[in-house]
Amino acid sequence: MNISDFAAYAVAMDRQDELAHFRTRFVIDDPDLIYLDGNSLGRLPLASADRLTQMVQNEWGNRLIRSWNEGWIELPQRLGAKIGRIIGAQPQEIVIADSTSVNLFKLVTAALRLQQANWPDKTVIITDNGNFPSDIYILQGALDLLGGFTLKIVPVDLLVGATEAIVAAIDERTALVALSHTAFKSGYVYDMAQVTAAAHAAGALALWDLSHSVGAIPVDLNGASADFAVGCTYKYVNGGPGAPAFLFVREALHERVRNPVSGWFGQQEMFAFDLDYAPAAGIGRFLTGTPPLLSLAAIEPGIDLLLEAGMSRLRAKSVQQTEFLIALWRDLLAPLGFTLNSPVDATRRGSHVSLGHAEALRIDLALIEAMNVLPDFRAPDNLRLGIAPLYTSFGDVYQAVLRMKRVVDERLYESFSAEGIAVT
Amino acid sequence: MNISDFAAYAVAMDRQDELAHFRTRFVIDDPDLIYLDGNSLGRLPLASADRLTQMVQNEWGNRLIRSWNEGWIELPQRLGAKIGRIIGAQPQEIVIADSTSVNLFKLVTAALRLQQANWPDKTVIITDNGNFPSDIYILQGALDLLGGFTLKIVPVDLLVGATEAIVAAIDERTALVALSHTAFKSGYVYDMAQVTAAAHAAGALALWDLSHSVGAIPVDLNGASADFAVGCTYKYVNGGPGAPAFLFVREALHERVRNPVSGWFGQQEMFAFDLDYAPAAGIGRFLTGTPPLLSLAAIEPGIDLLLEAGMSRLRAKSVQQTEFLIALWRDLLAPLGFTLNSPVDATRRGSHVSLGHAEALRIDLALIEAMNVLPDFRAPDNLRLGIAPLYTSFGDVYQAVLRMKRVVDERLYESFSAEGIAVT
Repeated sequence: MNISDFAAYAVAMDRQDELAHFRTRFVIDDPDLIYLDGNSLGRLPLASADRLTQMVQNEWGNRLIRSWNEGWIELPQRLGAKIGRIIGAQPQEIVIADSTSVNLFKLVTAALRLQQANWPDKTVIITDNGNFPSDIYILQGALDLLGGFTLKIVPVDLLVGATEAIVAAIDERTALVALSHTAFKSGYVYDMAQVTAAAHAAGALALWDLSHSVGAIPVDLNGASADFAVGCTYKYVNGGPGAPAFLFVREALHERVRNPVSGWFGQQEMFAFDLDYAPAAGIGRFLTGTPPLLSLAAIEPGIDLLLEAGMSRLRAKSVQQTEFLIALWRDLLAPLGFTLNSPVDATRRGSHVSLGHAEALRIDLALIEAMNVLPDFRAPDNLRLGIAPLYTSFGDVYQAVLRMKRVVDERLYESFSAEGIAVT
Repeated sequence: MNISDFAAYAVAMDRQDELAHFRTRFVIDDPDLIYLDGNSLGRLPLASADRLTQMVQNEWGNRLIRSWNEGWIELPQRLGAKIGRIIGAQPQEIVIADSTSVNLFKLVTAALRLQQANWPDKTVIITDNGNFPSDIYILQGALDLLGGFTLKIVPVDLLVGATEAIVAAIDERTALVALSHTAFKSGYVYDMAQVTAAAHAAGALALWDLSHSVGAIPVDLNGASADFAVGCTYKYVNGGPGAPAFLFVREALHERVRNPVSGWFGQQEMFAFDLDYAPAAGIGRFLTGTPPLLSLAAIEPGIDLLLEAGMSRLRAKSVQQTEFLIALWRDLLAPLGFTLNSPVDATRRGSHVSLGHAEALRIDLALIEAMNVLPDFRAPDNLRLGIAPLYTSFGDVYQAVLRMKRVVDERLYESFSAEGIAVT
């Protein structure tokens, strides 16, 4: 394709896009800004601003403490049930509270203690070397605390074959397989059902971090018989900066696992004020303290938008857009030294595409400062381009590539040298 | 005093109150409502509503991911340093992140592992039977995880003598003394310096939960040589529902303790994305995941109001108000069957006063539903009346007692029987 064909394709696709109108449901102050970082921080839904005003003025300011009995106390479960609908979980299997890392700590510790009690010879935790570092740090912290376990960081190729490599690494000593379902850097998507089945066949448990999957691709936790999951809500769920994360435990395990961070929100009768901890029935036992309610309430409109659009339609558009981006890369960017650092196979690719370049950091800075494009940079040489089909247009994808091309063609990056933006 | 003398006293005191104008800095939709639950959920500062609008519209909606480099990343430390000024901590000793219970888990675990490594014979954790139940649950969870420690719940009288009882219970086997500085039910305030000194003399560490102290009474963590502290910001700090909690570690201990919930926000160079956890220097190592930024940012105006008013002026007013409330109780409520469940000695009393009554639950409901008073109820028979001198007037105290008296005089409580409001 030549440039005018790409342009015509983008126009045609946007015209026929039945999800295009969702873009109007977000606050977009600057129509020229091409925002390709929804995989780090999703945009602000119009309804979220309204929800927060109601939360602050009416529920906090006016109703004050009474609001606890007027909906606040149920929020972790009610919103958990709602997000469960887009990741294949039953309503009683999921809550929203605490950060992804704190939730991961709770679940890893619970899972390993369950294994320790029943299968003391299972002492190995498997993860991969492309897992999000915070997940690995949490595993290291939990293992240091528990003792007796070892962490096996399997080196995998997160472009192709990682699923098979992990399956091959699982053996009878494996206690837990803990992976990010979609890799934060390459966007590789594991076959959750295949890995979970291999874990189960070996008597291991499977834990999935869905941070780069939820709201980006269809997920079916129950269909895959996944045991545990966590995930963040500030990326494709558009829940707001640092929005609390969700936590999932397969129902059959609820009564067999204990939350090590056992606070009063996970107590059987929290207002009886007994002095002995007795875990609540079901998933509620994984709550700990009072949740950050402003941040928690702000998540709901983002979930509602995903439910309204439907994950299968969003996935179809996302695949079309990442395919388009890769086609543009092949014709326009590869000749300029950009490499494709994401899977070619769309079935194994999430909703972001990574492009490598020796000057990636300075290109990133030039895009932000001079070209009104917001991608993100991941060390050492990776530009990450996030597609959020609720608000990303085909025109955005096309324009972003043209601007990237211009930054390199005209060597605009050469005037930049500062530290980069680097927050997921 | 008779009723008209009390009324005249209230009017005179409000007239001469140099802090009275702070009431106008809060959203008060219903001037007739007497809000005595600021010890559970503080009122909404006007500036917080503005701050949230800016946060949502400008920082999230407009600046998007760029906001991380425009102030977000420093928020846990910057707000921690600010709150440190009202509790006697150095700026580099405190962060705000996660819930009180999660923070407590981190610190208890860190403290006990430090003792375990150096003094394996120190195996007893001391707390009291009036500690907030969530704190006890967290201790139980951490002990269950660590093994080898026992929890000694010392029965104390939280009206008088608890400080001495705890000091007497400390011995050479004590690893950690973990207490709520101000008791959630009676409002008893421990002598922090005395208990901490006794702990240190025995080689034990001292951890303080300041949830019912911060913003209510002056606290001097450094003056008392306290080792660890946590505390919530949604009560007297007026930080908003479920606002994240703070976490303090004495500087001399920073490099000797490890955060068991070791996430990327506590990593030395979080954006280097190394696969080995290396704790950040200083207090930052106790951060874990991405903090809930809307809830976090909303805390700042509440801290600013406390700094502006000054804790010594606030304490002076609070003592006058609780003394006034107790005088009213003695003359008007004691004859109706109310008991004083808070210390008589003002130096050992925080900023809330508990009154017992056989019909406390139904009186609570009648006050809420029929009298436009919001106290709170703590099982089995306790009405808790919180004084927040930033916005509570002497007239509020007087009117609240008159309304309580009327509820009992006219037996208005007899038409109520439902479940009570019971959230701290």
